[in-house]
Amino acid sequence: MNKRERDFKLVVIGGGTGISVLLKGLKKHTSDLTAVVTVSDDGGSSGRLRTELGVLPPGDIRNCLVALAETETLMDKVFQHRFKTAGSLNGHNMGNLLLVAMAEITGDFISAIKEVSKILAVRGRVIPATLEHVILGACMEDGRTVFGETAIRNYKGRIKQVFLVPSTCEPVPDTLQAINEADAVILGPGSLYTSIIPNLLVKEIKEAIKETKAVTFYISNIMTESGETDDYTAADHVKVIIEHLGEQLIDYVIVNSGSIGEYRLKRYKEEGAVPVKADKDRIEKLGIKVIEADLVADDELAWHDPDKLAAIIIDVLKSVV
Amino acid sequence: MNKRERDFKLVVIGGGTGISVLLKGLKKHTSDLTAVVTVSDDGGSSGRLRTELGVLPPGDIRNCLVALAETETLMDKVFQHRFKTAGSLNGHNMGNLLLVAMAEITGDFISAIKEVSKILAVRGRVIPATLEHVILGACMEDGRTVFGETAIRNYKGRIKQVFLVPSTCEPVPDTLQAINEADAVILGPGSLYTSIIPNLLVKEIKEAIKETKAVTFYISNIMTESGETDDYTAADHVKVIIEHLGEQLIDYVIVNSGSIGEYRLKRYKEEGAVPVKADKDRIEKLGIKVIEADLVADDELAWHDPDKLAAIIIDVLKSVV
Repeated sequence: MNKRERDFKLVVIGGGTGISVLLKGLKKHTSDLTAVVTVSDDGGSSGRLRTELGVLPPGDIRNCLVALAETETLMDKVFQHRFKTAGSLNGHNMGNLLLVAMAEITGDFISAIKEVSKILAVRGRVIPATLEHVILGACMEDGRTVFGETAIRNYKGRIKQVFLVPSTCEPVPDTLQAINEADAVILGPGSLYTSIIPNLLVKEIKEAIKETKAVTFYISNIMTESGETDDYTAADHVKVIIEHLGEQLIDYVIVNSGSIGEYRLKRYKEEGAVPVKADKDRIEKLGIKVIEADLVADDELAWHDPDKLAAIIIDVLKSVV
Repeated sequence: MNKRERDFKLVVIGGGTGISVLLKGLKKHTSDLTAVVTVSDDGGSSGRLRTELGVLPPGDIRNCLVALAETETLMDKVFQHRFKTAGSLNGHNMGNLLLVAMAEITGDFISAIKEVSKILAVRGRVIPATLEHVILGACMEDGRTVFGETAIRNYKGRIKQVFLVPSTCEPVPDTLQAINEADAVILGPGSLYTSIIPNLLVKEIKEAIKETKAVTFYISNIMTESGETDDYTAADHVKVIIEHLGEQLIDYVIVNSGSIGEYRLKRYKEEGAVPVKADKDRIEKLGIKVIEADLVADDELAWHDPDKLAAIIIDVLKSVV
């Protein structure tokens, strides 16, 4: 018996910027959409709020909320507004401040997200991976250990493994229930070590993915990321996820076969990024189905196209759920 | 022919904290309500935003917007929220930041107020006395000249006259139209020199009050203010207004006859404030009708009661307009 697509229960796991693209596409197909978002960000406005106020970094959550907002309204613009002017507010993001204020008013971050979700008429829900103030650590290939997301990226070494401090952090119970009841759990797209893996380091989330009957997807990035996934192929990405999951739990990997174009390639090359090679054979050898498609958005950046990506996932689910 | 009260066109002139009490009362009687608000504030969050961002001080405007908000919602709470935590945000007010962000998004402060008014479902409208970045100056009785609202208050001298720099500042055209068409123009309640008079220093506002057929009220403060109106009677307040208007344009003065109570008197005394003496005879000698009533709110502070105050004004208008 095939489910109607608007009844699909979907869980998307990752960081804000990456998965918000996917959320924009998926919200058109279902409203039972849960975004589980890493909270190890320590850069920019989020990092400053984290340091100064001791709050969870709101930036990634903010991006997901905006992606799920029902319509494009002035409130979206306000929420994404970054103060451009001099002084202590410079670089702070209005949505971040609104989340922090709402957390002070309601007394907790989950209620703050819920209230802001109402204001933005959010379709679906956004949940931080954990409410603990975790720091991301990385063991590098050279034997060094680096602490903090920004520091890890800036170290520009080869990452062997990442971990959270404290490692005992707990998830929000709603997350476990959502994964348990999901038709699909989708990892990514997004920064491998700093956006996707941190969620899997919350032990109970990993366990829930292990136990769910949901179809599991991993959406490979289109481009490598300097200091994080230099020269990684799609299979390299997948292997890192499997290592951090502890076993092979992925059903489908979605890779891009579309062209990036000379102009974008050149710009990315300046940042030390190249297209992620879709080494299909190596992924299939892991027992994973590979879906290849032209996924590139018609944009300045080589983002995923939200609608193309969502359509592929929904098509798979229609045929198997 | 008597107008129905919901058709009354009212203009309230002053600063945020004082007139917001009146606005809360008046919004129940009419929606054609214009608050003209001074923008010479330079203290607190408003002062910092003014210095750091070069924006108009949003605090007084924020208070009026909240006073006119249709219902008590979470957005009101968010709008009035003051960050309590350490760091660069400490003491900043969320509503102030929202007004500043909205001004950056829309490109001007008037549009920002309009958009925030929509979010808060504001009944009526709030207009800054001028869009120029004015500084309040004061000639003191001792011959000194002091610049800046906070500095004037802290100087604790006797004020002779106040002025704006630049003196050529212009009003928002909507203000002039509102005064011109008003059934009543109401000055105060609020700080005499720092909330009410600054509006009258915008030359065209003064001219508009001179030319309007509206009934003109002045609502005397219940308590004196240390460093601003020490020992002033109600008539002293009125005389200062007349001096700054250039001629006698007040039809009614509303003074309090209610008791402040021992507890509040003692607290105010510690701040150097005493009840404003309602010297009715001296006011009447100026050709002004005096309305005496118990106006004190049942509150920690000796505020005006919004409903009592509004009822008196509406009663007068019903009998004369």
